[in-house]
Amino acid sequence: MGLIILFKMASTAEVCESILTQPPSSPHAIAYNYLVPNVRGLENLVSILQKSEYPTPPTTPPPQDSSESAPVTSPSDPTPASGASSSTQNTSEISLIAAATEAFSRANTNCTIQESLDRSQPIIALAKQHNLRVRGYVSVALGCPYEGPNVDPHKVASMTASLLEMGCDEVSVADTTGMGTAPRTRELLRVLRDAGIREEDIALHFHDTYGQALVNTLVGLEAGVRIFDCSVGGLGGCPYSKGATGNVGTEDMIHMLHSLGVETGVSIEEMAKIGEWITAELGKANESRAGKATMARLRG
Amino acid sequence: MGLIILFKMASTAEVCESILTQPPSSPHAIAYNYLVPNVRGLENLVSILQKSEYPTPPTTPPPQDSSESAPVTSPSDPTPASGASSSTQNTSEISLIAAATEAFSRANTNCTIQESLDRSQPIIALAKQHNLRVRGYVSVALGCPYEGPNVDPHKVASMTASLLEMGCDEVSVADTTGMGTAPRTRELLRVLRDAGIREEDIALHFHDTYGQALVNTLVGLEAGVRIFDCSVGGLGGCPYSKGATGNVGTEDMIHMLHSLGVETGVSIEEMAKIGEWITAELGKANESRAGKATMARLRG
Repeated sequence: MGLIILFKMASTAEVCESILTQPPSSPHAIAYNYLVPNVRGLENLVSILQKSEYPTPPTTPPPQDSSESAPVTSPSDPTPASGASSSTQNTSEISLIAAATEAFSRANTNCTIQESLDRSQPIIALAKQHNLRVRGYVSVALGCPYEGPNVDPHKVASMTASLLEMGCDEVSVADTTGMGTAPRTRELLRVLRDAGIREEDIALHFHDTYGQALVNTLVGLEAGVRIFDCSVGGLGGCPYSKGATGNVGTEDMIHMLHSLGVETGVSIEEMAKIGEWITAELGKANESRAGKATMARLRG
Repeated sequence: MGLIILFKMASTAEVCESILTQPPSSPHAIAYNYLVPNVRGLENLVSILQKSEYPTPPTTPPPQDSSESAPVTSPSDPTPASGASSSTQNTSEISLIAAATEAFSRANTNCTIQESLDRSQPIIALAKQHNLRVRGYVSVALGCPYEGPNVDPHKVASMTASLLEMGCDEVSVADTTGMGTAPRTRELLRVLRDAGIREEDIALHFHDTYGQALVNTLVGLEAGVRIFDCSVGGLGGCPYSKGATGNVGTEDMIHMLHSLGVETGVSIEEMAKIGEWITAELGKANESRAGKATMARLRG
């Protein structure tokens, strides 16, 4: 389960530095994800990584252990960029955002779609130099606040393919507005497959704005996708998508996945407690139905 | 779309009388549904029906028009019990509640399951005498607050069959606690079918307590069920099911059905406005995501 940190925010350099130098204790590895809006953002991140007391790994892959008992790693496996010496093997990755419509691209990133791809190129190159895993996003893939619900799935496929070809390890196809429906999600996944994009190279990112996120997740599961973005307590939103709510709640997602027999390794009870805590800390409503119901059940 | 009126409440006799004597104007027929806890409750309803200025229909079915152009009606079609002379052909029906677990039966209706069936018999008989359509409910069909999520689907099937045999025109199989999951919903529908219960004789009634209501609705649609209970703004709850939330929001249900190409005849925009209005009147949160998102969209 990844943790997305918005690297845009004022004090994120400090947040980032704090995480890298004093990582919270965890029995499992944590993948820290940093959203970098431009090369400058990534340079800042790299400089913090290098300043941190954890060694930045060499810019060429370390020699592989040839013993047969070594874990098999695929090229797309995250390579630890920091904390490699720590027992939890935390990883860092960066996120890049592009949009599937010109109107949203202009509003969200103040540039054309082509410019956003052009700007991504040096960021991806620099990230690869520092062995940072790169995650691309294609936002408004199933509906745009400016251009409506019928976003061209072929445009989404071409953006996804471009980001993968440029070196992204994974592309999250994002229903930013929550306008996605089961039939259009199915059609989009068909077009992506027809464009030669493998299910294992994409993630799906649903917002539950219209209550369809889990239904669409089912469609994604059926099509072979296995990575789904969610956020604890359903926290989040988007300043450029009016009325947008956060991602589908992690607790709702886990509850459904467990009900389908999927092993997530995540405790719904512990996740529900985190959701209750963090939403209270932030003074936001807990938007996860399963989270709230689980807490009610735990209280008896 | 039915309207359920809880006939348990203090002033419902007045509410009922008011609806029957001064029905709200509507371009479409409205099916008013009255929950009757016992024969006394039904006697009250019948007495109001008889007092109302709308004629109570005869206790035997009226002679059929033999012309071939007459609309075909099946035995399970609702027979108007009042307002038959009004142009909107409003109908009245009654609801009876039984439970699939002994513990919930005791808590909710203060009797055993068998006693609840025994008590239903004279109510159904009296309703039939007055040409009132009867809707049975099997509550906690997919999870009980006292006995847990694994309610025996064969018990649910036997209760459903009993209610249909006793004369119910339709049985709503109710996931009162929202514990229902896609696999258990599918299994329950399989057991119901194996017990000889036709999909057209049942409705499904989901609460969105754990966020699974629309996913479970999809499973029901796939199995051939076409009647789904919901409530505008997600209003409702259950005093005997701690932490229970209301039925899945009508707006969320309609949004999904429309996305699947189902014609409901309901305007999502008008339903969203009703949801916003009624939840504000009641001082409750609007729990329908599609309702809130639709209102945000309408405001632009």
